[in-house]
Amino acid sequence: MNIVFIGIGLMGGSMALAMRKLNYAENYIGVSRNPKTIKKAIELNLVNQSGRLEKVVPTADFVVLATPIDAVKIQLPIVLDLIKKDAIVIDLGSTKESITQSVENHPKRKNFVATHPIAGTEYSGPESAFASLYENKVCIICNKEKSDPIILKKVEDLYIKMQMNLIYMNANEHDLHLAFVSHLSHIISFALSNTVLDEQKNNKAIFDLAGSGFASTVRLAKSSPEMWVPILLDNKKAIIQAIENYVEHLTEIKTAIEKNNAEEIFNYLLRGNAIGKILK
Amino acid sequence: MNIVFIGIGLMGGSMALAMRKLNYAENYIGVSRNPKTIKKAIELNLVNQSGRLEKVVPTADFVVLATPIDAVKIQLPIVLDLIKKDAIVIDLGSTKESITQSVENHPKRKNFVATHPIAGTEYSGPESAFASLYENKVCIICNKEKSDPIILKKVEDLYIKMQMNLIYMNANEHDLHLAFVSHLSHIISFALSNTVLDEQKNNKAIFDLAGSGFASTVRLAKSSPEMWVPILLDNKKAIIQAIENYVEHLTEIKTAIEKNNAEEIFNYLLRGNAIGKILK
Repeated sequence: MNIVFIGIGLMGGSMALAMRKLNYAENYIGVSRNPKTIKKAIELNLVNQSGRLEKVVPTADFVVLATPIDAVKIQLPIVLDLIKKDAIVIDLGSTKESITQSVENHPKRKNFVATHPIAGTEYSGPESAFASLYENKVCIICNKEKSDPIILKKVEDLYIKMQMNLIYMNANEHDLHLAFVSHLSHIISFALSNTVLDEQKNNKAIFDLAGSGFASTVRLAKSSPEMWVPILLDNKKAIIQAIENYVEHLTEIKTAIEKNNAEEIFNYLLRGNAIGKILK
Repeated sequence: MNIVFIGIGLMGGSMALAMRKLNYAENYIGVSRNPKTIKKAIELNLVNQSGRLEKVVPTADFVVLATPIDAVKIQLPIVLDLIKKDAIVIDLGSTKESITQSVENHPKRKNFVATHPIAGTEYSGPESAFASLYENKVCIICNKEKSDPIILKKVEDLYIKMQMNLIYMNANEHDLHLAFVSHLSHIISFALSNTVLDEQKNNKAIFDLAGSGFASTVRLAKSSPEMWVPILLDNKKAIIQAIENYVEHLTEIKTAIEKNNAEEIFNYLLRGNAIGKILK
């Protein structure tokens, strides 16, 4: 069995390692525009060979698209053009509406399963990959009725073996909800980072005063711009909505502080505490 | 040696445990309005006895004020009224200007050292205390020229034995900087929690889609309202400024997304990435 990874960084590389642990295939083939990435991915044993997309995809039994989502949208129709009749194609992108639309009417649409494992770290590149990234994580599969049931089943079986918990929804719904629970968190972290970096101009030592609370809130600001610019543009409408709701909530607490309204602040914080019962 | 802890939750309790590890004193005495807290603190061996403030403070060689800051402001002058001539008094509060002002002209001002260990978790109460909370953490000592040099030295020696790294600044400066690196992070987390809890009304399963990134950004929203309401009110001016700067930075990225300006978004994210070099 030949598996082709288009993109072999944190997401693709970790999936390769998880598949290797399961002895899922014989041949792991990496595709990347960047020769250094391929060199590193082979060195780290994520893949055992490499090649150009046009050359290796026709030999593949399974193709994993793990590039930034703007690249996925371009590569996915090309991959479907090139694959063998029964080959499986999946992507791991953080938005799903435009990706599924890009192959909506493709004659090989049924070979494709749109998946989004809710897994990742703030790091990127092949050296950040690790075999357990996907373990005990939720994975959303979108528009499953558009995939061939046998191909869908094979992807589900693999993901279950990788210890993911599967959830199903349509792509539109997915993008809307992810704007709130993922994309917004990233924007919040980046904005915090930039705010305090600007404040550093007034106080060079400000980061010496930062504790673990700041570190945790700002962690996602280490994430890759190459990955995130396409997500923010692709899910623009839902993300703008999420930012607007968020600014309203910020304004609510700001106003309560300005008014010295201890009871209102207390209730606001107490409401927020409910997250502790939801995320253990 | 008698040490009195006024407030024996996460901060006071962890300090008691760290002192016990160093065999710093013979007698650890807890003061709390809440009988359940005292019972728990004795059960957990944070303190070995308890008593009313008015009764135990006159017997103390060392007093640790570890209550919410509105309580500290009331208790600190009373404690200084009651202490023996050479007793040491410290507080652990997250703001320092109003606390130091509350005893500015007190005849025993020199017995007091205003300290802020940048340590904590999102949990509270005696059961959340642990001995290593303060290890390898920064501690800010404010207005040190107002403290007796011998008393200051004893506090510094203790904190260094507890493996804290000491930084000195005036109380006003402290509050201004902490608004950005600590208080703002808490507000950001609480606002995120409330935003997504509201969005949950549209989608009951939304938290099933949340990954580790969301969990990290929202973690501080589990913090205690009893602790945080007084901080937000006390440091109002600097916090309002921090929120306003933050909303400006949020608006900057929102506008770039609205304009589909990939380059501007990219540069914004890249600027934010600089935090990765500062916080390893």
